[in-house]
Amino acid sequence: MADINSPLEIGVTTGPIRGSRKIHVGPHRVAMREIVLEPSCGEPPVRVYDTSGPYTDPAATIDIATGLPLLRRPWQMARGDVEAYDAREVQPEDNGLKGPDRSAGVPAYPNTIRRPLRAKAGGNISQMHYARRGIITPEMEYVAERENLGREFVRKEMDGNSWGAEIPEYVTPEFVRDELARGRAIIPSNVNHPECEPMAIGRNFLVKINANIGNSAVASDVAAEVDKLVWSIRWGADTVMDLSTGRNIHDTREWIIRNSPVPIGTVPIYQALEKVGGIAEDLTWEIFRDTLIEQAEQGVDYFTIHAGVRLPYIPMTAKRVTGIVSRGGSIMAKWCLSHHRESFLYEHFDEITEICAAYDIAYSLGDGLRPGSIADANDEAQFAELYTLGELTKRAWAQDVQVMIEGPGHVPMHKIKENMTKQLEACGEAPFYTLGPLVTDIAPGYDHITSGIGAAQIGWYGTAMLCYVTPKEHLGLPDRDDVKVGVVTYKLAAHAADLAKGHPAAQVRDDALSRARFEFRWRDQFNLSLDPETAEQYHDQTLPAEGAKTAHFCSMCGPKFCSMKITQEVRDFAAKQNAPIQTFVAVEEAEAGMAAMSEKYREGGNELYIGANGREQD
Amino acid sequence: MADINSPLEIGVTTGPIRGSRKIHVGPHRVAMREIVLEPSCGEPPVRVYDTSGPYTDPAATIDIATGLPLLRRPWQMARGDVEAYDAREVQPEDNGLKGPDRSAGVPAYPNTIRRPLRAKAGGNISQMHYARRGIITPEMEYVAERENLGREFVRKEMDGNSWGAEIPEYVTPEFVRDELARGRAIIPSNVNHPECEPMAIGRNFLVKINANIGNSAVASDVAAEVDKLVWSIRWGADTVMDLSTGRNIHDTREWIIRNSPVPIGTVPIYQALEKVGGIAEDLTWEIFRDTLIEQAEQGVDYFTIHAGVRLPYIPMTAKRVTGIVSRGGSIMAKWCLSHHRESFLYEHFDEITEICAAYDIAYSLGDGLRPGSIADANDEAQFAELYTLGELTKRAWAQDVQVMIEGPGHVPMHKIKENMTKQLEACGEAPFYTLGPLVTDIAPGYDHITSGIGAAQIGWYGTAMLCYVTPKEHLGLPDRDDVKVGVVTYKLAAHAADLAKGHPAAQVRDDALSRARFEFRWRDQFNLSLDPETAEQYHDQTLPAEGAKTAHFCSMCGPKFCSMKITQEVRDFAAKQNAPIQTFVAVEEAEAGMAAMSEKYREGGNELYIGANGREQD
Repeated sequence: MADINSPLEIGVTTGPIRGSRKIHVGPHRVAMREIVLEPSCGEPPVRVYDTSGPYTDPAATIDIATGLPLLRRPWQMARGDVEAYDAREVQPEDNGLKGPDRSAGVPAYPNTIRRPLRAKAGGNISQMHYARRGIITPEMEYVAERENLGREFVRKEMDGNSWGAEIPEYVTPEFVRDELARGRAIIPSNVNHPECEPMAIGRNFLVKINANIGNSAVASDVAAEVDKLVWSIRWGADTVMDLSTGRNIHDTREWIIRNSPVPIGTVPIYQALEKVGGIAEDLTWEIFRDTLIEQAEQGVDYFTIHAGVRLPYIPMTAKRVTGIVSRGGSIMAKWCLSHHRESFLYEHFDEITEICAAYDIAYSLGDGLRPGSIADANDEAQFAELYTLGELTKRAWAQDVQVMIEGPGHVPMHKIKENMTKQLEACGEAPFYTLGPLVTDIAPGYDHITSGIGAAQIGWYGTAMLCYVTPKEHLGLPDRDDVKVGVVTYKLAAHAADLAKGHPAAQVRDDALSRARFEFRWRDQFNLSLDPETAEQYHDQTLPAEGAKTAHFCSMCGPKFCSMKITQEVRDFAAKQNAPIQTFVAVEEAEAGMAAMSEKYREGGNELYIGANGREQD
Repeated sequence: MADINSPLEIGVTTGPIRGSRKIHVGPHRVAMREIVLEPSCGEPPVRVYDTSGPYTDPAATIDIATGLPLLRRPWQMARGDVEAYDAREVQPEDNGLKGPDRSAGVPAYPNTIRRPLRAKAGGNISQMHYARRGIITPEMEYVAERENLGREFVRKEMDGNSWGAEIPEYVTPEFVRDELARGRAIIPSNVNHPECEPMAIGRNFLVKINANIGNSAVASDVAAEVDKLVWSIRWGADTVMDLSTGRNIHDTREWIIRNSPVPIGTVPIYQALEKVGGIAEDLTWEIFRDTLIEQAEQGVDYFTIHAGVRLPYIPMTAKRVTGIVSRGGSIMAKWCLSHHRESFLYEHFDEITEICAAYDIAYSLGDGLRPGSIADANDEAQFAELYTLGELTKRAWAQDVQVMIEGPGHVPMHKIKENMTKQLEACGEAPFYTLGPLVTDIAPGYDHITSGIGAAQIGWYGTAMLCYVTPKEHLGLPDRDDVKVGVVTYKLAAHAADLAKGHPAAQVRDDALSRARFEFRWRDQFNLSLDPETAEQYHDQTLPAEGAKTAHFCSMCGPKFCSMKITQEVRDFAAKQNAPIQTFVAVEEAEAGMAAMSEKYREGGNELYIGANGREQD
């Protein structure tokens, strides 16, 4: 077992991603990553959104036992609307049935905030509340700076189909405020998670992705979980959910939050269930409420609450092929059945909302009745719950509490759009947060791909955040490699959605990489890709020689022929001749032009450079 | 170097896929795969489309040096419209610049057909020609049987959006004939590839996938290529393209065709280029024509011909970010530039068509000007070529020759649909055959996924065949593992498209797998998946114990909680109470029903079974 007090033993990965450097922009020193290109190309560095926190900053000192700096604390105090108080005492049951299991190597976190903050009595410190009062917070300014990434390079005309979203050419703090006020975006920001770098989840911002971590009764431990947190944000996770169950839940979560620069989400019912020995029917509102307070004080930024699983909807799942597949949903279904009562989450919803308002915790209204198979997609149970989530959204908004809505699941492509349309209509444009969806059930072992296909599409249609799926989905617990593959797959799906929506900054990186490909700048290609290590490894498997990285050829055509080079020739002629470019020319006209061009060609000597690059076969 | 005469040395994989058995259906003994489920479930075996040929048939004797049985030969002879003749002599240049390099381990194939067949003088033996004369061939009957797969199990109402395709509830030989006659489908079937099991490519049939193999000047050898052929069809490749360049092209192709139960496609210009020392401008119509005859006699089933790369379109590529990325396209562009003449492929198109008619070779009209980057998608050069391909399609159809059209490439999601719409309009519904498209440029190393996202969508919109992309795309040459990952990724994309189009048989396998998941039938889940080995490996990484494969729990929830079980309880109550199922019930009404249900529940004792299965986290 690793010595938890040693970051090295925990194996957290630090240091910059290859070819990149950390920069800080604007008055709030917003962290971004800059990919530096070969001087030969004369192109500026490419700025990319950076979720990795101080772990990729060579200047930062990382000490897992101390935690990250409290970035937001000054902003919070300056608002003068919070009070510190004595934290609820940690109970043995907070760490699972038999209490903390030290043998599993989870000591209490050495640097816990003993005096958490909350809104002064009767107050509301949610970002939505400030926004509705016309206040632009530093969090909103930070988000505006962060989202504008690379827009300065961008040509003005928008290209894309955003399906009715209202993506601005440039994000101003006022735009962020307005989106928050309207409930179209959220900034998850529990007052007790001051380490968090503000980020926005909303249809008119860049599409975000979430990575799930968490131990389970069967495997894993806290060292591995902290490592997975740092590893997943290194590759691009915008938020992380701690889905731990079993023992040491409280302590594990503390280690994670204190070291997380991204919002942390949880499903509080998981921990509540542990407190009652795993017997769903023994759950009570009091135990659940106590768990919310416990997690609120630790700094959880958003809660998945399955308040839409109402008693009358449960029979609608009876004829399904896979019934209820959401763990939270099935816990509540079991409780409702055994007590033949309406869900206590639904009945106490407004009280939960009060807690959220006091700490600025965002709702992630859970889709406990989402389909777990193609056969069950878009059925009555699913949409009955969705419309209830819409009703609850309005109730949360009445208290100025931030809300996003969780979505499926397993959905064939032709039924994906309906999910987005109904969600926008039922939930007043509150951000949609979906798991996939998987577009077929027949590929276990490849469900990061079956779900990446659905995720890219629903992201294009307007989903604000995509919950990743790893290759181990349905089969086992993801290891470090699975987490990376899941994150990179979702990052590319989210980016594909940004491109299709016509996000002004999105294409900058594609164009830079494609120019590097055309110009044989291999290292730039690797560094501009989502996973530089893998790109270089694959290249080297065929052409290991260091020289091959600068050579003007690749293994696809070999050192004999180059399609890219021919384009360069076409380009040269066109330039010399001022031949008509990008405008359709009649055959005769062009042939005339080409005759002259060909003369020049022969004069110039028509030797080909060696090799080819970026060609696709055929 | 492996001894080419020993299949074992070549390392061809034989034997059934785990959990499956080979069956033969109907008068033509159409090969299919049956996945046998655990007796406990009482479900019939699931039939799946089988591209693997005799290699997965334990009863078959495999001898790579002898080749596969000549399945179609009796049908061909019975038609009485072909003649055997002395094959063109194999020339040294057929095997590359320096002639065959035996040291590279490529002996001439020992069992070559020395007397190839062709249509009797002036005749036409294309499947389209027969179809238009109202003749239903055994090939059409075979295809009908093959496509109907599992439809007998299917509930009648169609579910899906086929974007105007006309998918029949049941495929009859007459339907196949009609689709061929209209040019909406093709059956690639060179008379000299009698080993081929007939298959159809068309918008109203199951979506097909192609795998590219082929050596290159830089790597690989014939043993590896034959192995890749067998390996790629084992996992589901419907056709295979041999994109070999460099030496031993002729002999390598012979080894591949004689051992292939699927249609083989080539890009003849690659070999023609080798014959002129790699100097594009030295290509002539005579050399190209001779190469077509050479390949026609070997049995190539479809030719990629870049006849749409016309002289006047070349300047349109000058302002592109990645210019011309198609190798065939750039060869022709270079030829046109240096001779300032119209492409000889375009000028001699009708003569090429005559050759195709005499051997029944299908056209795959190449998109030599397809975009190689997001920036170049859907531009003027691309669509100018597409409309020329449409003109050529009609010219080929005038001679009753089968045609499909190649498509891009790199296209952001919002521009994919336009590609399909314009292709249908320009090419009279001739089958579309696309490479991906990749929906972003920024993920080298993951381009099987970036392209799988685009492939699933364009397949849904109506593309008939999807050309796979491996993780090595843009970086290097795919190895055996890359080929498998590429094939499985495209298989799932094609299946997702079939589901979304509402293909009557498509959902059978999803439902069977989801039922197995719900009922904890782990082995059935593995066996029903596209890649059983990987599914089981991933499962065992978390829970290696053999017992875990029969246990009623999995690693996601651990041995404590089961969401699936709860559904079973919901189901039982519903049944007992005849509670309203699948019909929306008013809250009060339901609560009343549930009250009674709950009594029963408590009576029955509400202990949970151990464990959980199929749950997705949250």
